[in-house]
Amino acid sequence: MDQPIKAFVFDVYGTLFDVIAIKEQCEEVFPGHGEAISQTWRKKQVEYFMMRQLMGKYDTLYAVTRSALKYALEDEGLESTDDIEQQLMDAYLHLPLYEESEAVLKQLQDHQLVVFSNGSHDMLDPLIENAGIKDLLDKAVSVDEIKQFKPAPAAYQYVLDQLNIERDEVLFMSSNGWDISGAKNFGFQTAWINRKEAPVEQLGLEPDYVFSDLNGLLKWK
Amino acid sequence: MDQPIKAFVFDVYGTLFDVIAIKEQCEEVFPGHGEAISQTWRKKQVEYFMMRQLMGKYDTLYAVTRSALKYALEDEGLESTDDIEQQLMDAYLHLPLYEESEAVLKQLQDHQLVVFSNGSHDMLDPLIENAGIKDLLDKAVSVDEIKQFKPAPAAYQYVLDQLNIERDEVLFMSSNGWDISGAKNFGFQTAWINRKEAPVEQLGLEPDYVFSDLNGLLKWK
Repeated sequence: MDQPIKAFVFDVYGTLFDVIAIKEQCEEVFPGHGEAISQTWRKKQVEYFMMRQLMGKYDTLYAVTRSALKYALEDEGLESTDDIEQQLMDAYLHLPLYEESEAVLKQLQDHQLVVFSNGSHDMLDPLIENAGIKDLLDKAVSVDEIKQFKPAPAAYQYVLDQLNIERDEVLFMSSNGWDISGAKNFGFQTAWINRKEAPVEQLGLEPDYVFSDLNGLLKWK
Repeated sequence: MDQPIKAFVFDVYGTLFDVIAIKEQCEEVFPGHGEAISQTWRKKQVEYFMMRQLMGKYDTLYAVTRSALKYALEDEGLESTDDIEQQLMDAYLHLPLYEESEAVLKQLQDHQLVVFSNGSHDMLDPLIENAGIKDLLDKAVSVDEIKQFKPAPAAYQYVLDQLNIERDEVLFMSSNGWDISGAKNFGFQTAWINRKEAPVEQLGLEPDYVFSDLNGLLKWK
């Protein structure tokens, strides 16, 4: 595509930030169960926000994530407490950036750089603050402001409305196939950050670009 | 709940019919990969129909299931052909009933018995025909008639519209947590057929009844 790109819009979890720390935290608290808990936790987190969007029962991603954690712990047959759940939830506020994230953001400073997440501001703002990248971003937008989760078209429309550009002048980045599909369906240009060499989703909505990490964006620096 | 039940509405895959045959078929065609293919296949099937519902991009469950299969095979690094995919898809038309399904349907014949599935009629009708239970059912309803997938409220509304009763006079059965949550959200009474002793979904929509198999319904015979 040769359409000029006027804004780079980044997903957060798994895209700018490495969610591996969540598994490590689960493993620390429940040795031998870290992999299973974190896999079920993520699976249920995605299922639950999609379910809530489908049922018209929005709740914040923070609440959804905590509910998903309860399910994951119960599924593993583990006893838990509010304190333990809080400790695991706090891992979401202190995720590490991928090693290239900050350098890429720095080299794209001539462009409009926006973060756009299903995460509510109670998760998103501390994460960005703790990582020290707030000054590198023009804006951090949460779907919580409109209470419509990605991949619903209304969510992508909401972030577009803040940019004052055409939808195909946005390049949207995510490592999540469902998010890339939703953004492409809406009409954004899309760059799938395919860190795990996963197959392309079979939804008839192929990404415009596929990169193994965010360094692929440096062609626009 | 003491509300009288005037119709029993059954989900199909995993509820009346055992989907284990799909794994077995995958294993037969791709030895050593049956478990992985069938797990990814099912996961992507659910994700894709939810995604399509969220994006307003309905396609039949047959098409969605075939797309999910393509993803699953690619994810396992397996080469495939149209013939092989067709062979695996055909497993969906010849699933076995659970051992109690037919006997339970027979003992509930004094009630209105309806099947209600995300499956399109090209999948649903041959399956019911092949299993020989067509005469035990008053109706087999597919979301394809309205092109809205469960768990969207519009899907449950559609089946209710055919029953001429109040929504809380319906008892809806499914083994799928998301389906039970969606039906409860809509206002049906719900009986979760929890064959695998899974935890209750953490969506604030607990089922009215939980049974380990369909024999639990015989209290209403």
